[in-house]
Amino acid sequence: MEFLTNEKLTIIGAGGMIGSNMAQTVAMMGLTPNICLQDVYAPGLEGVAEEMYHCGFEGMNITYTTDMKEALTGAKYIISSGGAARKAGMTREDLLKGNALVAQQLGKDIKEYCPDCKHVVIIFNPADITGLITLLYSGLKPSQVNTLAGLDSTRLQSALAKHFGVPQSSVTGARTYGGHGEQMAVFASTAKIDGTPLTDLIGTDALTNEQWAEMKQNVIQGGANIIQLRGRSSFQSPSYVSVEMTRAAMGGAPFRWPAGTYVSTGGFDHIMMAMEVDITKDGCSYKDVQGTEAEMAELQKSYEHLCAMRDEVIGMGVIPPVSEWAALNPNLK
Amino acid sequence: MEFLTNEKLTIIGAGGMIGSNMAQTVAMMGLTPNICLQDVYAPGLEGVAEEMYHCGFEGMNITYTTDMKEALTGAKYIISSGGAARKAGMTREDLLKGNALVAQQLGKDIKEYCPDCKHVVIIFNPADITGLITLLYSGLKPSQVNTLAGLDSTRLQSALAKHFGVPQSSVTGARTYGGHGEQMAVFASTAKIDGTPLTDLIGTDALTNEQWAEMKQNVIQGGANIIQLRGRSSFQSPSYVSVEMTRAAMGGAPFRWPAGTYVSTGGFDHIMMAMEVDITKDGCSYKDVQGTEAEMAELQKSYEHLCAMRDEVIGMGVIPPVSEWAALNPNLK
Repeated sequence: MEFLTNEKLTIIGAGGMIGSNMAQTVAMMGLTPNICLQDVYAPGLEGVAEEMYHCGFEGMNITYTTDMKEALTGAKYIISSGGAARKAGMTREDLLKGNALVAQQLGKDIKEYCPDCKHVVIIFNPADITGLITLLYSGLKPSQVNTLAGLDSTRLQSALAKHFGVPQSSVTGARTYGGHGEQMAVFASTAKIDGTPLTDLIGTDALTNEQWAEMKQNVIQGGANIIQLRGRSSFQSPSYVSVEMTRAAMGGAPFRWPAGTYVSTGGFDHIMMAMEVDITKDGCSYKDVQGTEAEMAELQKSYEHLCAMRDEVIGMGVIPPVSEWAALNPNLK
Repeated sequence: MEFLTNEKLTIIGAGGMIGSNMAQTVAMMGLTPNICLQDVYAPGLEGVAEEMYHCGFEGMNITYTTDMKEALTGAKYIISSGGAARKAGMTREDLLKGNALVAQQLGKDIKEYCPDCKHVVIIFNPADITGLITLLYSGLKPSQVNTLAGLDSTRLQSALAKHFGVPQSSVTGARTYGGHGEQMAVFASTAKIDGTPLTDLIGTDALTNEQWAEMKQNVIQGGANIIQLRGRSSFQSPSYVSVEMTRAAMGGAPFRWPAGTYVSTGGFDHIMMAMEVDITKDGCSYKDVQGTEAEMAELQKSYEHLCAMRDEVIGMGVIPPVSEWAALNPNLK
């Protein structure tokens, strides 16, 4: 079996549904033989490791530990789905603060145990915020931390393919930018259906304005729809798309979707959000988003929403005010 | 994206944990773009299909249906994890009869809807029996139907690697043959640890007879151990190893483990059990097992256990007596 690299990749939260799928996905993609699985829940973690051993992958060296120091020491790549689980009675704020603190600790751990790590992918919610916090405390460069944001775009691609009855790959440029959920900016001007600009189709019988509005709403609620259908949160697609980011960061196939990245141009600053990215061995670079006036207004709204959430976390005391960020992480101007 | 074939592969039971993992595994391995997902539970099935769409696989054509006729029509490859779920109060016999009837119907459906199918993998329990029943009613050749049996061997490989502290791939020839569970025959004479015959190590300080006996017991209980650790049945490894069989049947990388196959030589007949196999585009062929006298006695015991289970199913009226098999499927002498 050939691998993209031999460097250590650590999967945090590997005992969960997303994390365990990532372990398998990494092994199947041949990213690296050296995978370390970490989770706070020891039995589940061991169970996942056993499952991986029972796959009989050739040439793999899969280890596991509940100890973060052991997990991160020597790690060059990290993917974390290790957020805190929502418990009964928790408010939205409780959950936000809980995961913000997890991200803070992860950032500190990276700084302490693997300051030379090359690339980090964060996928626990709200990923744009937890990714930002991890970046702040890790001391890494903005180009080294990405968050999962591509699922909104793959959902849009899938919805358009279904509507127009074309193969999914015939829908190109399906894009959402900014945040997730209610506040994502769904773009039409970037997309083509079998080569035809989507904007030429919206408002015609092929896709009425009402249908497009409904489709956007469905994309926004794509995750909730999976829960309703499967009786569990989406885990296969978040895992798969996340691992594709790490593959690109290892020098493998280019990543084909927007990713959450630290943004400091184009009127946006001190925020992590979904942008058009290029992820390579040298890290992530992004391009400023181009869209219609209405789309850019949507993106601005999405940005403001993310800023409000960031300020909420500042208010909680989990991260310092923006003015103090450069002192915490000199890579952030 | 390049695929091994463009022929249709149908995954039955795709709404479940194993089936949904198989869908992702098939797509990631690049076996074929044309995957049809089938399950009796429509919402779960749709949820899995959505997850696959949200992965954004390139060039894939993934369809789904609850209708078996639609699922099987044109299918050249089939993998089924679509057994009946064990319900509260069910006896072992109830479960056996339930899944035997599912296998009977699957065989009939294959005969009716896709008699030209090339290869079938059966993985719902007890797989040796359900695979046998499917073969009987499908009218296919013995070389066209395999059952999942490799997990016992991968578990043995993993256990040996752990014990000796060597990479898993340094353990070669880890093999169990015959049935599964309590009645599997765990072989030592085929295995080597970093080139050293396992039989040279058993009974020494490196691996005492007691340790070896305990290891065999742990391998036998490998599945139960996963349930205890993860709180759910093993699903990643059964899926992955099964899909590797289909890959081999499509002409891809050779399958590296024993598989359940219809056996009619070497003193065994009218049974499906784990053997040393060669799965290619031309189907599955097997070699007679070679082992020590004690190992062959174990295999004989395992065979007799499977015969008893087969006769139990004959007694239930799900399959006819052995003497009538050739009339039901002329490919069985």
